[in-house]
Amino acid sequence: MFITFEGGEGSGKTSVIKRIEEKLIKMNYEVLVTREPGGSVVAEQIRKIILDSKNTSITDETEALLFAASRTQHLEEIVLPALKEGKIVLCDRYVDSSLAYQAYARDLGFDFVLSANSYALKHLPELTFYLDVLPEIGLKRISERDDLNRLDKERKSFHEKVRQGYLKVLEMYPERVIKIDSNGTIDQMEEDIMKVLQERL
Amino acid sequence: MFITFEGGEGSGKTSVIKRIEEKLIKMNYEVLVTREPGGSVVAEQIRKIILDSKNTSITDETEALLFAASRTQHLEEIVLPALKEGKIVLCDRYVDSSLAYQAYARDLGFDFVLSANSYALKHLPELTFYLDVLPEIGLKRISERDDLNRLDKERKSFHEKVRQGYLKVLEMYPERVIKIDSNGTIDQMEEDIMKVLQERL
Repeated sequence: MFITFEGGEGSGKTSVIKRIEEKLIKMNYEVLVTREPGGSVVAEQIRKIILDSKNTSITDETEALLFAASRTQHLEEIVLPALKEGKIVLCDRYVDSSLAYQAYARDLGFDFVLSANSYALKHLPELTFYLDVLPEIGLKRISERDDLNRLDKERKSFHEKVRQGYLKVLEMYPERVIKIDSNGTIDQMEEDIMKVLQERL
Repeated sequence: MFITFEGGEGSGKTSVIKRIEEKLIKMNYEVLVTREPGGSVVAEQIRKIILDSKNTSITDETEALLFAASRTQHLEEIVLPALKEGKIVLCDRYVDSSLAYQAYARDLGFDFVLSANSYALKHLPELTFYLDVLPEIGLKRISERDDLNRLDKERKSFHEKVRQGYLKVLEMYPERVIKIDSNGTIDQMEEDIMKVLQERL
């Protein structure tokens, strides 16, 4: 089973995924936690280019194509083999990130981003948790980190657009994407997610 | 004026472009000779990933997306500014390479490659010279080089498919793409190209 986690900066994805992983392992599932580039050497090389703070000249189209390339490689090398072995794959961000960030927030349009990601769209997750956080709360959380990358540093208005993008994605895929309120505590998020998972597993 | 040169390995693009550049400069045109990644730092980083002989795990889709990303960046940073300054841009390979190599020879299909390259398609060259060489002649020419990269090393059957791909491209864009016989001497190619250019300039 392929499960992805989506959300803006500071939505708590990393922390909550760790909790879910522990729960699933206790329930005797084999679990792989990953995020693009997730151990694929080629995908890692691609991601370095995207996140390098020095690469200020990178265009929106280039960024979208690089994300799609990294995703394709990670899918092929990491996700699909794990699914084949019967593992539950928990993936931090996937194609919906490109829809929210590149297609919507960067105004590239859904057509362009969907077609660049056509390989990933052939392998959509069974379930996606969208962790919905208000930009002011998310940005406050990440302001305490000191390793902010190029994308974290975007203005608040951009993060508001990202949230609007995710709400569009929710409309596009109402069956697959489940919205989880992420403005409160991690304990609450974990409980909400496990409730859904226990029904589905 | 934006002019591109296309062709399989060993078709003589680099040598003939140098000749054409010299001729145009003598005719008092301002000329920029370039090839992707052509001085764009980001595009150069992308190209390194594609051509690294160690990256054997790279999938066909990833390769196509990386070429499209590198092209977009090079177009934006190098080609469009030069055209804006009124220069003639001679570019070694462009979107037709992806159509011949990725869409046709790698069987990814024209739809996928065209949509990944949608930004470049908004900026098609006015004129494209396709240097048509028989694979056995082209491969013999490059076998004398000792810096063969990952793509040069493909089997001969692949290079035959590339040629078939280019012949498809010729059918798709009969107005823009002009076929030049490249099995003979460079002098002959130069003469054939200059004949066309003198009509168009």
